[in-house]
Amino acid sequence: MSESSLLAHIYQRSRGLVAPGAHILVGPGDDCAVIEVGDEPGASVLLLKVDQVVESRHFESSTPLDLIARKAIARAVSDVAAMGGSPTVALCAAVLPANYLHADQLFDAAAKWAIHFGCPLVGGDIATLAAPGPLVLSITILAKPHASRGPVLRSAARVGDHVFVTGHLGNSLASGRHLTFEPRLREASWLCDVLGQRLHAMMDLSDGLGRDAGRLALASGVRLEIDASSIPRNIDCPTWQRAVADGEDYELLFTAAGDVPAHCQATGAPITRIGTVVAGTGAVATASRGVVDISTMGWDHAT
Amino acid sequence: MSESSLLAHIYQRSRGLVAPGAHILVGPGDDCAVIEVGDEPGASVLLLKVDQVVESRHFESSTPLDLIARKAIARAVSDVAAMGGSPTVALCAAVLPANYLHADQLFDAAAKWAIHFGCPLVGGDIATLAAPGPLVLSITILAKPHASRGPVLRSAARVGDHVFVTGHLGNSLASGRHLTFEPRLREASWLCDVLGQRLHAMMDLSDGLGRDAGRLALASGVRLEIDASSIPRNIDCPTWQRAVADGEDYELLFTAAGDVPAHCQATGAPITRIGTVVAGTGAVATASRGVVDISTMGWDHAT
Repeated sequence: MSESSLLAHIYQRSRGLVAPGAHILVGPGDDCAVIEVGDEPGASVLLLKVDQVVESRHFESSTPLDLIARKAIARAVSDVAAMGGSPTVALCAAVLPANYLHADQLFDAAAKWAIHFGCPLVGGDIATLAAPGPLVLSITILAKPHASRGPVLRSAARVGDHVFVTGHLGNSLASGRHLTFEPRLREASWLCDVLGQRLHAMMDLSDGLGRDAGRLALASGVRLEIDASSIPRNIDCPTWQRAVADGEDYELLFTAAGDVPAHCQATGAPITRIGTVVAGTGAVATASRGVVDISTMGWDHAT
Repeated sequence: MSESSLLAHIYQRSRGLVAPGAHILVGPGDDCAVIEVGDEPGASVLLLKVDQVVESRHFESSTPLDLIARKAIARAVSDVAAMGGSPTVALCAAVLPANYLHADQLFDAAAKWAIHFGCPLVGGDIATLAAPGPLVLSITILAKPHASRGPVLRSAARVGDHVFVTGHLGNSLASGRHLTFEPRLREASWLCDVLGQRLHAMMDLSDGLGRDAGRLALASGVRLEIDASSIPRNIDCPTWQRAVADGEDYELLFTAAGDVPAHCQATGAPITRIGTVVAGTGAVATASRGVVDISTMGWDHAT
């Protein structure tokens, strides 16, 4: 069973969940879970996310510890940004290879980056392997949604929206940018400030624009039509197909009604309109040679 | 560096943490982190915990999937019980061996047990290994403290308290009880109801009464004197030393002022007075042959 099939199985099974003492506003399937705790008045809406990095999959054994820790935290932070939220606190669970000598440095680095991204580590767990195996870091973040806009879901795109991405896409793995990307927290918050309820749907791009656009389309019950020539590529990304399929960009993909500034006025990050939301299903790119289904272009990661 | 040394390093470094938009009431080092989110009035105090089970360490490759999932959830729930809390929602992150065929059954079992213990899964992550390695399940639980007693910390034992345990100790691994234990949620909640502020300190016993009593003593700045002959042993546990050192009991260790009923009136679970809190440091057992330091008897797990 592929990871995406397994996730679909999990999402299907999770519908209608009820928690004692909390309202589950969004369960599995979006960038974060959204829950409401406490009694009215004064209920708090919270975002909750867990994400993992695994040796030989998300980093190599030669990757510097500081960058392993940074990527672990930044990936989970990116999922918070994807909903327009602000990180609050984090937990770090590590599985360490047998005789691993750098655990203190690894935890120090994780703690440093957690503070850097606004969510200090308040707990964790350590398990040391008896047999050979990879280093695993599992990061949980508790976050708050944007105060006025609320959580921005991937399931709320509407027919007639325009489709946008921040930054540039492609070649993240080969270039090493997958280790040093800046999660788009400030851009996401600024979009919530400026667009308010005109900002309909958002997610972060971890598995490639193609596959992720397909997920947003599926979640929203719409079709995303992308103009291939408009996709902003990194200078070292030679083709639009690579920009769609390479993955690990950690840029924001969002849909909104009306106009959106060409740059984030808080950070200067470029914002590019790349397409339109129409009735239908799936995600396609219109290129000179015709219309291409891009919804399977990318990585079959769990997001 | 041993896990306990590493944890001490992490706790030391975590003092004085400040989170944007939240108050960190208890950081790393107790059974759960305790944080306060939201603005007064209406702030919510929450418990947050991550815990992992790893193949060949916490279960075997031959362990039935249902029991692996049960143990993963129950261990984290036991940490919530240790503070007197009630689970609310959970996240499940899994690292799957290459070509693992039972992921859907594993997640179904985790989802079932999460609901059983009152904290439905609202999110998760899946990573599949490219190289050989163990199955890992990492469980995060968000929980609420007891409404009137608040979070029961391990750091609040006082000189003059009596020391108690629930249930019986020892031989959990060999007997298989480490896979089927019932986290002491109801007992912990009942203790909060009945004892209120007389219930001073509490934790769950995962690494052996000896080592865990040493941790409670260290956190509270006191000494625990245990009467070896009073330690309640499981019928298949032959000696008090085994009851102190075997670990994975998942019973509650607590200290309280005054008397405590001999059974939990909510569940019938036995409650046994096993010792006294005195001035000093460490944890000792008084046996017929003299006084024994028990604070290193047990497992050097992260808790």
